[in-house]
Amino acid sequence: MKTESNLKKEEITSHQKTVYRNFPMVPRVVFGQGSFSQLGEILLPKRKNADAPFIFLIDDYFETRDLVAQIPLMFNDKIIFVSADEEPKTAQVDALVKMIKEEYDEQPSGIIGIGGGTLLDLAKAVAILLSNKGLAEKYQGWDLVHKPALYHVGIPTISGTGAEVSRTTVLLGPEKKLGINSDYTTYDQVLLDPDLTKTVPKEQWFYTGMDCYIHCIESLTGTYLNAFSQSYGEKALELCKDVFLEDIPDEESRDKLMMASWHGGMSIAYSQVGIAHAMSYGLSYLLGIKHGVGNCMVFQHLEEFYPEGVALFKKMVEKHAINIPKDVCANLTQTDFDVMINVALGLDALWENALGKEWKSIMTPERLQALYQKM
Amino acid sequence: MKTESNLKKEEITSHQKTVYRNFPMVPRVVFGQGSFSQLGEILLPKRKNADAPFIFLIDDYFETRDLVAQIPLMFNDKIIFVSADEEPKTAQVDALVKMIKEEYDEQPSGIIGIGGGTLLDLAKAVAILLSNKGLAEKYQGWDLVHKPALYHVGIPTISGTGAEVSRTTVLLGPEKKLGINSDYTTYDQVLLDPDLTKTVPKEQWFYTGMDCYIHCIESLTGTYLNAFSQSYGEKALELCKDVFLEDIPDEESRDKLMMASWHGGMSIAYSQVGIAHAMSYGLSYLLGIKHGVGNCMVFQHLEEFYPEGVALFKKMVEKHAINIPKDVCANLTQTDFDVMINVALGLDALWENALGKEWKSIMTPERLQALYQKM
Repeated sequence: MKTESNLKKEEITSHQKTVYRNFPMVPRVVFGQGSFSQLGEILLPKRKNADAPFIFLIDDYFETRDLVAQIPLMFNDKIIFVSADEEPKTAQVDALVKMIKEEYDEQPSGIIGIGGGTLLDLAKAVAILLSNKGLAEKYQGWDLVHKPALYHVGIPTISGTGAEVSRTTVLLGPEKKLGINSDYTTYDQVLLDPDLTKTVPKEQWFYTGMDCYIHCIESLTGTYLNAFSQSYGEKALELCKDVFLEDIPDEESRDKLMMASWHGGMSIAYSQVGIAHAMSYGLSYLLGIKHGVGNCMVFQHLEEFYPEGVALFKKMVEKHAINIPKDVCANLTQTDFDVMINVALGLDALWENALGKEWKSIMTPERLQALYQKM
Repeated sequence: MKTESNLKKEEITSHQKTVYRNFPMVPRVVFGQGSFSQLGEILLPKRKNADAPFIFLIDDYFETRDLVAQIPLMFNDKIIFVSADEEPKTAQVDALVKMIKEEYDEQPSGIIGIGGGTLLDLAKAVAILLSNKGLAEKYQGWDLVHKPALYHVGIPTISGTGAEVSRTTVLLGPEKKLGINSDYTTYDQVLLDPDLTKTVPKEQWFYTGMDCYIHCIESLTGTYLNAFSQSYGEKALELCKDVFLEDIPDEESRDKLMMASWHGGMSIAYSQVGIAHAMSYGLSYLLGIKHGVGNCMVFQHLEEFYPEGVALFKKMVEKHAINIPKDVCANLTQTDFDVMINVALGLDALWENALGKEWKSIMTPERLQALYQKM
């Protein structure tokens, strides 16, 4: 889950009284095989006028695929294909916003993100920045967005990140990898069509699904958990086990993984991720390693923290014959390690969730470096 | 679940192509023990002005209890205590709306329902009727509400009905018991504080919890189910089993039953209830039997349709030493039976979900009467 920061530490206990987040849920959702064909009908009442376009941000993987013909374009609507090869960046958001503002006199009717976590996060950020002034980096943090985002619709084409349901959009900024966490980040509408995930390459399917699985293990074993998040997390975990350890028909598997991602994303309402996510942030900040892959590279070495979760994970890796990249930290300098360690240890809430309030005495920079050196 | 009609039959297949409902979710939710103390803070930004009150509709059970002192009253806010002894009626909604309109020149800032299914359904209906003209009965059916309801907040004090999350409000009208099913029915905000259910009397706790359990059995074994609803229904069922068959601490039990009700309500997005709910509607229409009790009276006799579900149900009844009312149909006339049978068989979607498209050849009026005669 690209959700390092859905819960502020201060929100857990303030003035010695528990204060619970008033969590924003996606107010509209369609689920069903083939439901993508309903997109036009869903967007129609949201068109402000013929000059206010819908902007479709789509993973460029689909540029040559059938899906494009099914996009319900009208008037001056625009498709922008975006590469998901790299993690989404604040500068990329700023460039997209500038391009849209220059091309249109009117505010768009809305933004539709179609793709994986990268595209879903970009679309959220673009919708926010089209109605909030300044650069994207200014909003990285907690509740810094003060005006509602443009109407935005999320349509996942791969399952696992939970970006379709979370209240954050994690961006790589000039100084940090951090989410724009706000009530306005959440999508106004989500369309869940498991058929869209039919063409996902196997490795990507695995790594992205593991984002959900690892998140569930981290949140369910964490210190922040309550009954709300637990119930969602348990269901997501159960679905992940069905998908990655059982032999179920492809169609059922796609349905279930899409629901796992959905429930996994909901489970962070009152929970938090943990060590694998914190360390994976370091890897992607320094080395540009994609979030899902980074999680797996880290998680396999975390037996001492998540014994059962790691054991099951190894079964999944074996069953699907996945080769997790090795030796990526082999040639790093001490300065490199320091950068990664700083990024990872900066995520207080994740460590506190995993190891409790005294986490700093448990996870020292030296111990963290030793873990990175295994990778 | 008081949700006989969340899914129109026509929505399942139209023009031989599946059309999926664009389901409205509650856009804001707080969950946590003691979270009721946050209500004032939640309402504050929703106040239109000092003359536009919040109207609190509260189960009169709380009239003499501590909860009342915690209601965050300001300016000319008003508390209206309502008896939940009878199922909510359209005439009752009309009377409440009239009273509010006569007392205030301004539209209220919002309606807050605090109580069980009856209060939650009443508050939804009052919020709708304050912004839509005419009598409540006019809106019983599917998607007949055309203007957004007033801002409305649901706060359950007993768990099981799912009314806090559903898009219907089931009302007894002059001619029918039927929901106001619409996208505007869903609450704008829900506050889930398991502590509020501490004082629920045991029998009521059981019957209302069984509303959730029976709903889950009906939807999970139904023909309408898809992966979305299945995942919610399975989790709700699992939580019900923990609560009613295991020996878990009270606090955990309250947390879990509140989440069971929540997920159970979500599970009807793409599913439907079945035979017990259809028959229970007949009982409550003719005899005024409360929904939860009626469900149990019926469900115990449905082994042939739900063998595993009924077997588990009987274990729960035994474990908690519940005496389900008997012989309520002993002195009914044939006209009485005909009324109940008409009400029950009028709910096509429930029967089709339970027994398939050919349900009319399976559940004849004679067979249904024989079932009622067991009660």
